[in-house]
Amino acid sequence: MTADLTIVSTNRSFGGWHKRYRHTSRTLGCDMVFAVFLPPQAETGRVPVLYWLSGLTCTDENFMQKAGAQKLAAELGITIVCPDTSPRGDHVPADPEKHWDFGHGAGFYVDATQEPWARHYRMHDYVTRELPDLIEATFPVTDRRGISGHSMGGHGAIVCALRNPGRYASVSAFAPIASPLSCPWGEKALGHLLGADRSGWKDWDSAALIQSATEKLPLLVDQGDADSFLITQLKPHLLTQAAEAAGYPLTLRMQPGYDHSYYFIASFIDDHLKHHAAALR
Amino acid sequence: MTADLTIVSTNRSFGGWHKRYRHTSRTLGCDMVFAVFLPPQAETGRVPVLYWLSGLTCTDENFMQKAGAQKLAAELGITIVCPDTSPRGDHVPADPEKHWDFGHGAGFYVDATQEPWARHYRMHDYVTRELPDLIEATFPVTDRRGISGHSMGGHGAIVCALRNPGRYASVSAFAPIASPLSCPWGEKALGHLLGADRSGWKDWDSAALIQSATEKLPLLVDQGDADSFLITQLKPHLLTQAAEAAGYPLTLRMQPGYDHSYYFIASFIDDHLKHHAAALR
Repeated sequence: MTADLTIVSTNRSFGGWHKRYRHTSRTLGCDMVFAVFLPPQAETGRVPVLYWLSGLTCTDENFMQKAGAQKLAAELGITIVCPDTSPRGDHVPADPEKHWDFGHGAGFYVDATQEPWARHYRMHDYVTRELPDLIEATFPVTDRRGISGHSMGGHGAIVCALRNPGRYASVSAFAPIASPLSCPWGEKALGHLLGADRSGWKDWDSAALIQSATEKLPLLVDQGDADSFLITQLKPHLLTQAAEAAGYPLTLRMQPGYDHSYYFIASFIDDHLKHHAAALR
Repeated sequence: MTADLTIVSTNRSFGGWHKRYRHTSRTLGCDMVFAVFLPPQAETGRVPVLYWLSGLTCTDENFMQKAGAQKLAAELGITIVCPDTSPRGDHVPADPEKHWDFGHGAGFYVDATQEPWARHYRMHDYVTRELPDLIEATFPVTDRRGISGHSMGGHGAIVCALRNPGRYASVSAFAPIASPLSCPWGEKALGHLLGADRSGWKDWDSAALIQSATEKLPLLVDQGDADSFLITQLKPHLLTQAAEAAGYPLTLRMQPGYDHSYYFIASFIDDHLKHHAAALR
């Protein structure tokens, strides 16, 4: 284990281990906590890693506690890594309006260019580079990587895959923000982090990036049709339109009656784990 | 639905529904919230019910969010009902020391005899009578009932089954308090609720009740051997000794490396659901 890594907690789980660690991130300029689920197969060999990016207000804990993913991950032999959703700390600037949809708990997985955000809000760099480097140097894992997430983290997962060809073997999302360019959450966050000039925003917009994708990883998306954010914020039809225009392999499943909660994620996480396992093994 | 029942929230989950309700409990003299998971089979017929009693500091939410039970319950056709862990409200007396191990969130599933507790702290009566009557009058369920729980709720589940022959078809527990007579949590709670005379405590003590059980439902207990409360509070050897002396059918499984958390519960909940389903169907 690297000298900088401090263990926060350890739980035996499904024959493997759920562990939380704290480390000092040079990318983000603050201490960060992340969680790892190590399946039983990690005791005897190297296993691939699925990165999970959570949504607004979440930490590393929500997915590990509520998604019910560890049972099948233990069977399939997949390590799961959950980072936090933003830089943290008293010295890290927060939402000037003190709302929950920006700042702490809401980093939007982009690399900020504007002050006062640019020093700390570099979550894309963190989740695609610094964290995988740390994971692969520390744990018995391979460099086969999948990425998935929910809502703001669904946007993050798709953007990470599309911006980094060759870095991920699989990608999926639950109820992703399809286009931060086209919704209030995205307009607020990118307006702060990237500035008022919207021309640069398309580099962080799933619907825009799909249209110029050079690598076409099959993208599985589940979306509840009773999700209260469906119409105003998530707008999955923008993903569908972009994928159809670009010939991108998108499977978007509208799930009748399901909302934006972890009950929705738990109901379909096994399908996503199988989607990733097929590419990661 | 009865006139008194108010819906708090609804989530589609595994093809069924997770719903939370508020009602005024005449037994407890306060408003109470409980949660129900209705499996898909409840759309077309009546299904049996598993009652889950949670541990210290919990509410109706912990098990539903963290146990990962709904997937298999949806396959097996079992409704799950989670009550809160104590009476609640500003008018309900709380721990005079303001600790987390007694009072609000810590009703111990007994019927208090001492003031100021006797008016409200009647959780045994509530979970064995008032709540099942309400559930069976409201939802498409049968009167086949199982009961399980964790820690304080494991004690509660075993006591509910042993004190009410014929009322439950199945019983199990995770890391139960085996003998409130013999541990600090139990001594504090029963000292308040039942008074200083310990002779009446044995009517609420699993290890004592097993020795006089007239109905011998097979009891499945899982216990982690890395549980930080194992030695001081839980003392499963007292259950084992009582069961051996009485010829009671106890299966106690010590699970190596597991602690007191919901990661432990999630790891083995499917075995418990199958244990209950075999008796409930």
